Amino acid sequence: MKIALISMEVVPGRPDLNAASMRRKIAEAKTAGADLALFPALSLSGLFLGNVWKQPAFLRDCTAYAEEIAATADGITVLFGNGAADDGCTGVRRTLMEARDGVLREVAHSPLHGAGTHFSPLLYELPNEDIILAADASPFPVCFDVRALADTAREKRKHIFYVNALGLQDKGKTIYTFAGRAQVFSADGMRVLMSPAYTEGMTVVDTESMPAPLTAAKEAPIAPKYRMLRYAVQKFLERIHMERVVIGISGGIDSAVAAALYVDAIGADKVLLVNMPSQFNSATTKGLAAQLAENLGCRHMIVPIEESVAHTVQQLTAVPIMGTAAQAAEHLTISSFVRENMQARDRSGRVLSAVAATWGAGFTCNANKAESTVGYATLYGDQAGFLSALADLWKHEVYALARYLNTEIYKREVVPQGIIDIVPSAELSDAQNVDEGKGDPIRYPYHDYLFRAFAEENRIPEDILAHYADGDLEEYIGCAAGLVADYFPTAEEFIVDLERWWGLYTGMAVAKRIQSPPLLSTSGRAYGSDHPESQIDAYETIRYRALKKQLLKK
Amino acid sequence: MKIALISMEVVPGRPDLNAASMRRKIAEAKTAGADLALFPALSLSGLFLGNVWKQPAFLRDCTAYAEEIAATADGITVLFGNGAADDGCTGVRRTLMEARDGVLREVAHSPLHGAGTHFSPLLYELPNEDIILAADASPFPVCFDVRALADTAREKRKHIFYVNALGLQDKGKTIYTFAGRAQVFSADGMRVLMSPAYTEGMTVVDTESMPAPLTAAKEAPIAPKYRMLRYAVQKFLERIHMERVVIGISGGIDSAVAAALYVDAIGADKVLLVNMPSQFNSATTKGLAAQLAENLGCRHMIVPIEESVAHTVQQLTAVPIMGTAAQAAEHLTISSFVRENMQARDRSGRVLSAVAATWGAGFTCNANKAESTVGYATLYGDQAGFLSALADLWKHEVYALARYLNTEIYKREVVPQGIIDIVPSAELSDAQNVDEGKGDPIRYPYHDYLFRAFAEENRIPEDILAHYADGDLEEYIGCAAGLVADYFPTAEEFIVDLERWWGLYTGMAVAKRIQSPPLLSTSGRAYGSDHPESQIDAYETIRYRALKKQLLKK
Repeated sequence: MKIALISMEVVPGRPDLNAASMRRKIAEAKTAGADLALFPALSLSGLFLGNVWKQPAFLRDCTAYAEEIAATADGITVLFGNGAADDGCTGVRRTLMEARDGVLREVAHSPLHGAGTHFSPLLYELPNEDIILAADASPFPVCFDVRALADTAREKRKHIFYVNALGLQDKGKTIYTFAGRAQVFSADGMRVLMSPAYTEGMTVVDTESMPAPLTAAKEAPIAPKYRMLRYAVQKFLERIHMERVVIGISGGIDSAVAAALYVDAIGADKVLLVNMPSQFNSATTKGLAAQLAENLGCRHMIVPIEESVAHTVQQLTAVPIMGTAAQAAEHLTISSFVRENMQARDRSGRVLSAVAATWGAGFTCNANKAESTVGYATLYGDQAGFLSALADLWKHEVYALARYLNTEIYKREVVPQGIIDIVPSAELSDAQNVDEGKGDPIRYPYHDYLFRAFAEENRIPEDILAHYADGDLEEYIGCAAGLVADYFPTAEEFIVDLERWWGLYTGMAVAKRIQSPPLLSTSGRAYGSDHPESQIDAYETIRYRALKKQLLKK
Repeated sequence: MKIALISMEVVPGRPDLNAASMRRKIAEAKTAGADLALFPALSLSGLFLGNVWKQPAFLRDCTAYAEEIAATADGITVLFGNGAADDGCTGVRRTLMEARDGVLREVAHSPLHGAGTHFSPLLYELPNEDIILAADASPFPVCFDVRALADTAREKRKHIFYVNALGLQDKGKTIYTFAGRAQVFSADGMRVLMSPAYTEGMTVVDTESMPAPLTAAKEAPIAPKYRMLRYAVQKFLERIHMERVVIGISGGIDSAVAAALYVDAIGADKVLLVNMPSQFNSATTKGLAAQLAENLGCRHMIVPIEESVAHTVQQLTAVPIMGTAAQAAEHLTISSFVRENMQARDRSGRVLSAVAATWGAGFTCNANKAESTVGYATLYGDQAGFLSALADLWKHEVYALARYLNTEIYKREVVPQGIIDIVPSAELSDAQNVDEGKGDPIRYPYHDYLFRAFAEENRIPEDILAHYADGDLEEYIGCAAGLVADYFPTAEEFIVDLERWWGLYTGMAVAKRIQSPPLLSTSGRAYGSDHPESQIDAYETIRYRALKKQLLKK
């Protein structure tokens, strides 16, 4: 029996386009002599559709297109995925449909999962054959663990043919990719086939001559995230009908990695880099930004912001405040802190927005996950953008991606080593002078891991403090040994730091994340639609207060 | 038997504060001679807590505080609400706890609903009494329909004592108020008591002398929304520890209503109004803005934006575009459309942000729901702000609120009649000259209702087109008769308009809503956390295409 596994891009909410695509692929499978064609789950509808699942007309059309597919399946058995109305709590079930010579029947179903955390393929054991079909629609990286299929194959002594959906789908703020891999497990539980991720195509396997077991290829841990990001950037731009991007480059690591990623994904001629120095930007970072632009070969501009910021300061302090509530000759006074954030907004809200609109582009947000966790970003400033490609990467992952892009993708130093080596700094004031080794208040080697414990493992200060007291905090959160004692000589300093960031994470940062751009989920635990939040005050648990008291007494 | 119904503000996620508040109120109830005190559901924990519900330590503390309450309940029976771990799909159940002389027991429970659409009180029939207690935690306006209690009372021939939580809680982007009303229904199904909304207090009723039935008071339909908005604005500012607000006033209706609302809620000395004219702002609207500020008596400033916008245009067109991908002497050219949006961003991203930061305030977003539905707002411009108080009001509700504020609250013309009468316009170009009667592309008398059908009733273009074809569209969507024929002389014009707005609603507007500020739910069907969305292309159903073909053939 010849089985065609179809890695097909599923366009969410477009059964018309998906049906047309399926008809073409069914014809190809017949040409290739396949007896059976297996499509992914929800191949007609897509998975993340927001309110569309609540439209009876949409489900009605999905049924109509399914019947159209059935009519196409002449001389070949076609298994494909669809959505159908259901009594369950989501109101919809995912179905596996079998079509042959105009006859359509449902052979498997499961509830539609929308929560983004639990997915499993629809399984169908072919009658009178030692074959199980598995049709999936699992987003990367929360996707179904296909290794479980190896166990099922071994247990049941049957071959398993698996295919996942391909494409990009979003839940509003959080965007997921679907890797679309076809995989085959032989009856002894060995993986004998795996098609490349993010690649449309058809894999035909003759069950009479199963391939030999695969050996796993070695690669850098960041490699799957790189593939995902590259595909996502391409597809998201396609989805929103945008071809070009503008990227503000500071000479720092995040914007440099963003620039290298976008140039790799869409080409140097589609990317415009803009460096926007103020009086606080060092010659060092200005030089590094220029070098980055040169290495990438794309358009770049230098738009200084000093004059514009000075104009605003001058104007706002000169304008009189009128009204009966005002004191005589009342005026505003701009503090240096306010001036810092004015610079960030001048760059994004004034320059990048206008450049992007003029160039028919979107401008990117280059925030990383450590910054998002504690709101270390300016609203309408560096937090702005049409997409946050890196917002689910911790700072150490951004560095890993920089190195990976240089060594494995470009195979030359595209991100200048100077950018990798320099201290991370927003350069918004003299206190952040990189030439003096000064930079961000976040100490990434420790805070990256502390924040990950907050954001991805739902740890709270009492957990952190308990492990601090036990002396095994570094192991608990996964950071390098010796950092805690190095950064915080006393328990008091440790606690001040912990409470400062926890307060920001549960406070101001929530407010900022509410207005942050859409972001790509690369961890499966991204901020956005799958990270429920409320603007509530930080609460100190009873145990936390006791631990703190004990530690401060020592 | 004397029953004390406790209207108590529940602070979400703060069992420590809520327990302290409950202890005080239990003492008051005892002083008032009550035999029993009834608190709202989830009175220790709150309802919308995001990830906090997944923290075992939080649930553990809730139990500890419940035991503390039990110890307080000496000589009085206390019924209160809490959350507890559960096997169900939310992992948490809401419980009704009875405490008396240190003994604590669960007398009722139901699953924790987090979806924001279905709520019902926890009921407990007192043994050997003709009394049912009902403890609720239902947000307004999606709150449990208490009239159902009248039926239950009549059926069971028992008195029902009901109390709802009071306060403000959010699901991140969407903010809800809880009105905290106490209500009593007598055994014949009559409402005999209703305490005022949004008011902390205690209502003691002696079951031996039930009050007489109430007669419903008449008021304007916008009145409940006004009360909700006023309370929400106060509480939200308190929650985020912010005392003052800055409001950009254009001389249009939305910003005028926002200004009048905030001044009413927090006082004129806490509000700073900023008018930011460009060359396109008429003397008419500038005058109306000044008059509004004078009527309200708060601080106001005039900050023209012309110079700043001109500087940006000049700078961006002068800067050369460098790089190997660039053509010789490549420069940007700023179109008039780009210049329009630059004005909006100059106002919010430059002026209001800096003024607010300097004044220790937040600046408001004054968008209404019609604008949000189709993304008629500029990102980082007029869409920006710390809170969108009016974003769940349709334009006609904004007008209703303006009239209500003038006649019922201020009892004088605070919002100038000229602002109520003028054509709605963004005044971003000559095409929007109000003195020539030109304004926004949205024709509110029709589009308000069309958009409501999209956003609140999940209607899709095939529904709209079917009713257009049948000639009963105005009745179907609830707008004034005659408008459709007036605005759209031909079916083609009607369809072009329908597809334009539907495309924006499901496209660009989704992208904008992802980055919009938190908003108050006044309809129960607000955008934000309870309105699942995906960035997917508009899909034309099979029936829509058929209807369209038929209509255009005529």
